[in-house]
Amino acid sequence: MGCAKVVIALGGNALQEAQTSPTAEAQLDVVRRTCEHLADINVKGYEMAIVHGNGPQVGRIALSQETAAKVDPKLPQMPFDVCGAMSQGYIGYQIQQCLRDALRNRNRNVPVVTLLTQVIVYENDEAFSKPTKPIGPFYSEEEAKLISTEKGYVMKEDAGRGWRRVVPSPTPKRIAEIDSVKRLWDTTIVVAAGGGGVPVIENMDGSLTGIDAVIDKDLAAERLAEDMETDFLLILTEVDRVSINYKKPNQTDLSHVTVAQAIKYIEEGHFSPGSMLPKVMASIKFARRFPGKKAIITSLDKAVDALEGRAGTVFTMA
Amino acid sequence: MGCAKVVIALGGNALQEAQTSPTAEAQLDVVRRTCEHLADINVKGYEMAIVHGNGPQVGRIALSQETAAKVDPKLPQMPFDVCGAMSQGYIGYQIQQCLRDALRNRNRNVPVVTLLTQVIVYENDEAFSKPTKPIGPFYSEEEAKLISTEKGYVMKEDAGRGWRRVVPSPTPKRIAEIDSVKRLWDTTIVVAAGGGGVPVIENMDGSLTGIDAVIDKDLAAERLAEDMETDFLLILTEVDRVSINYKKPNQTDLSHVTVAQAIKYIEEGHFSPGSMLPKVMASIKFARRFPGKKAIITSLDKAVDALEGRAGTVFTMA
Repeated sequence: MGCAKVVIALGGNALQEAQTSPTAEAQLDVVRRTCEHLADINVKGYEMAIVHGNGPQVGRIALSQETAAKVDPKLPQMPFDVCGAMSQGYIGYQIQQCLRDALRNRNRNVPVVTLLTQVIVYENDEAFSKPTKPIGPFYSEEEAKLISTEKGYVMKEDAGRGWRRVVPSPTPKRIAEIDSVKRLWDTTIVVAAGGGGVPVIENMDGSLTGIDAVIDKDLAAERLAEDMETDFLLILTEVDRVSINYKKPNQTDLSHVTVAQAIKYIEEGHFSPGSMLPKVMASIKFARRFPGKKAIITSLDKAVDALEGRAGTVFTMA
Repeated sequence: MGCAKVVIALGGNALQEAQTSPTAEAQLDVVRRTCEHLADINVKGYEMAIVHGNGPQVGRIALSQETAAKVDPKLPQMPFDVCGAMSQGYIGYQIQQCLRDALRNRNRNVPVVTLLTQVIVYENDEAFSKPTKPIGPFYSEEEAKLISTEKGYVMKEDAGRGWRRVVPSPTPKRIAEIDSVKRLWDTTIVVAAGGGGVPVIENMDGSLTGIDAVIDKDLAAERLAEDMETDFLLILTEVDRVSINYKKPNQTDLSHVTVAQAIKYIEEGHFSPGSMLPKVMASIKFARRFPGKKAIITSLDKAVDALEGRAGTVFTMA
């Protein structure tokens, strides 16, 4: 029997809760609950790969290094690409440990493994001139302005939740380790392109060099779904469905959107950059690439229902 | 044609030079040179997997987190297992990037990928009651005593190079992600069990829990070589050959050692714990497990020569 294939993009709320402590221990609890949902999807017979975000984590890793370096010269600050690789290690470790357990509890001994993943972007991507991706902790407006003055960071208000540092978010062009994902897919759940992948540029001689950026994990998940020609791209976030007029009196939740409708909603400014916009963009890209296949945006709770057509916002070409 | 298989254990000097800066940028330069040697081994027709150490790196990650947490409560300290996973991300990323480039320069498009690896140890391993594994930066004796008093760390003198923190180093029992290594082996160079693997214990219900420890990377490499039934275990370090009476007037470099001789030398105290001893122990274990196969300890420079029988210290059963 041919199993349906799905790439699952996990949003920040699948890893950390906004109002609880950002410790690794607290994150492990959230990841454990998330992995119960992921295991349920696998039990339903879906072959899957997982792409997770890393905004808060990579921001904290970078800030932690920066803070420590000021106190102790024996603790040099790491470049941002290395912080991204470290966040893949951190988050991937927790997911593979908890997902293995959740699967075992369902009598499924499916291997789970994290692949350290580099994602190639174009050096002249216009994103480098206008940073948009929020990373790290939230600050008050006053704190944010002080940090901006002191460190030269670009700080922006993030969807009503506070101020954060933003970095460039170039478009993912190629997953450097895609061959390994392909070789493992049939037998193994891979965690890949974590945090959107470590961003690298390809030099004239074909070698790779890491850069200071964060690739959007939803677009990286879409890239992976295209490469694997999966049946679904499943983007999990805090809400059950995508809305237009979000948080306004006339808010409307969407159950099915065509590519043409989605583009119109984007033009009308319904989706917040750095939050819902990249999810919708990734969904459009997938639906356009594979007419007849579905991209879905929904919550962890509704994931199984959404794959079976009973929940979520489904994006299709027509 | 059947290729000879080898697991390569990379020592600290293959990642960082003792006398240069411990920045990621400086490490990348060292890793790049190391990967030239590794690519040369691959070009000679060896199928290989790579296990790297992480002592200085995981120590700095942990210390950096600890230092930052004191300054800014928004930057919580990570548990030691997570620091280990982060170090796998950091070092694995650099190795897979540089090794891919080095292979491409030799017209070999062999995929290279890092697998986030958990290694299972026994909860009642006696190592937990006597920490032996040096991690992190070197300190003077005075600094070390102060740190020991302030933080409760166990500090020890490390082979004449200075004082360092030591943590428990339990014996690796099983590589949790061995299935993925096996599936990729034929086509792909995997970086696995980095830093000896993230140490985990297996609970009564079969679930895994991370613990505060560092598994010796030479013993983890040996575990991997046993699982993969490789032809060679190749342990790369700072010296071309293992010596008895090291740094004494009657120092003798060894070209071939049987398991029985090696055990005698250990009993005579020739090998430094936390340095040459675990390498010799791993070599003995491999040679004993596979009579007729070879474990080799040598330097990066001599690696190819050693595999071809012209250099290094070779360990065999008889």
